[in-house]
Amino acid sequence: MNWHDKNARIVIVGVGLIGGSYAMGLTRQGYRVCAIDTNAQSIEFGLQQGLFAEGSTEPRPELLAHADLLIMGLYPTVMLDWLRANQQHLRPGTLITDVSGVKSNIVDVAQAFLRPDLEFCASHPMAGKESSGIQNSDCRIFVDANFIITPTERNTPEGIAAVRQLAEILHFKTIRQLDIHAHDHMIGFLSQLTHAIAVSLMTCNDDAELADFTGDSFRDLTRIAKINDVMWSELFLLNRDILLDNIDCFSAELQRLRQFLQENDREGLQQLFRKSTARRLQFDANK
Amino acid sequence: MNWHDKNARIVIVGVGLIGGSYAMGLTRQGYRVCAIDTNAQSIEFGLQQGLFAEGSTEPRPELLAHADLLIMGLYPTVMLDWLRANQQHLRPGTLITDVSGVKSNIVDVAQAFLRPDLEFCASHPMAGKESSGIQNSDCRIFVDANFIITPTERNTPEGIAAVRQLAEILHFKTIRQLDIHAHDHMIGFLSQLTHAIAVSLMTCNDDAELADFTGDSFRDLTRIAKINDVMWSELFLLNRDILLDNIDCFSAELQRLRQFLQENDREGLQQLFRKSTARRLQFDANK
Repeated sequence: MNWHDKNARIVIVGVGLIGGSYAMGLTRQGYRVCAIDTNAQSIEFGLQQGLFAEGSTEPRPELLAHADLLIMGLYPTVMLDWLRANQQHLRPGTLITDVSGVKSNIVDVAQAFLRPDLEFCASHPMAGKESSGIQNSDCRIFVDANFIITPTERNTPEGIAAVRQLAEILHFKTIRQLDIHAHDHMIGFLSQLTHAIAVSLMTCNDDAELADFTGDSFRDLTRIAKINDVMWSELFLLNRDILLDNIDCFSAELQRLRQFLQENDREGLQQLFRKSTARRLQFDANK
Repeated sequence: MNWHDKNARIVIVGVGLIGGSYAMGLTRQGYRVCAIDTNAQSIEFGLQQGLFAEGSTEPRPELLAHADLLIMGLYPTVMLDWLRANQQHLRPGTLITDVSGVKSNIVDVAQAFLRPDLEFCASHPMAGKESSGIQNSDCRIFVDANFIITPTERNTPEGIAAVRQLAEILHFKTIRQLDIHAHDHMIGFLSQLTHAIAVSLMTCNDDAELADFTGDSFRDLTRIAKINDVMWSELFLLNRDILLDNIDCFSAELQRLRQFLQENDREGLQQLFRKSTARRLQFDANK
């Protein structure tokens, strides 16, 4: 993929919120984007709004045969099925990247079955919105967001550099490389555990009258409890072992607090609160 | 307490963030406020800033002898000690209210030892800030906030009405009455459980590098992990049994999610996510 060539052919498969926002950002930068999505309304919307120049509801071989960069905007397991079925149509040398929030059980699987003349360099745009779908596309969600590249020993310096340039063109704030395990540990804690907690807090008490009294703290903790059921169950299951560990670690810590409370251990509680305050201030400093 | 008389004597004991903000709001409405706080700097600051007209570091009998309304801005247990030591100086008929976030083990105790010619009508301004102290006083924190009055059978309609007027003068958005048990259940869930969760999330993982990657969801869930250790350990312990129940209820729900994950139960996870999404939307509607 040569980013200096604005006629380079970029094909985005799956134009939901992220795929659509990638298309918008790249098109605005003058690149030629072709979108493939089984949803005809999504293709129609994207063409009407000028998010991409070309679109198709089918993975037509002639579209794929000229792709320089293939961006997979599908859910992780759907992406694997799609690549298995369609890699035959890609020309040798096509670079493939994705947007998946989990890399274990995806990247190694894809790299194992893909033709050796194709390069799959995985990446994760840590950006999103509460609303999904191409109708909510907005390439500004990438500004101030983190972009993580998760290369393996199968990737080339050129492939990694090209994916990094993609993130630069889309104006991500920070671009980093992590190995797959480190990435999934980080995501398992910062994103998946927080969603598991928010969901549990939202579902553990069905007293509807409480809504009358909610203040900022409850709203803050449950904002992410509005959750895409299909995507998040898939992400949770792909990262199952790490997320189970994180839930156990958090639960043990909450039980420690519970124990202090049970035993009327005021000093134990105060120490915990001071530790919590100090750590949170450190996070503010890094903002 | 006659709110039509702007010369009515209002004494605020303990001018931290909430006491100071009460003083600011009442002074701006033209009332005469006298502050008592053992911290000389707080009194000096409040006088300089015009938050109150009169101040003292001592509970001088002549200040208390003319109080129409006594607002206790102290931590709950400190308040009990203060009232025990100083109620002798109050004139018959003085109305007393407080700002405590927990009412069990406080209101019944106070009402039991207070002289029968004094009325204690408890209330809870559900407002605050991340920073404490009179220096951060701001009466705008009450606008859009809930104010809860928790009367008991010992209170008079006149006492309850006067406390309600206090909340109106301070521009609270909604003013409600709850019995003590209902109040502490609501607070145990909406406020204390959320703080317990935020603290545990903040302290369960000490990988400082994670700060580099935190996104909105982790920041949202841990914003309240900066917590006043003395005040919150006191509030937790006063509401211990209810908070223990809430922690257990939340933990059981998180374990239910964990079980779905452990058993690769995709449909179980999806059902939970749909329930969570539906409930959160309901809270948005009530905003």
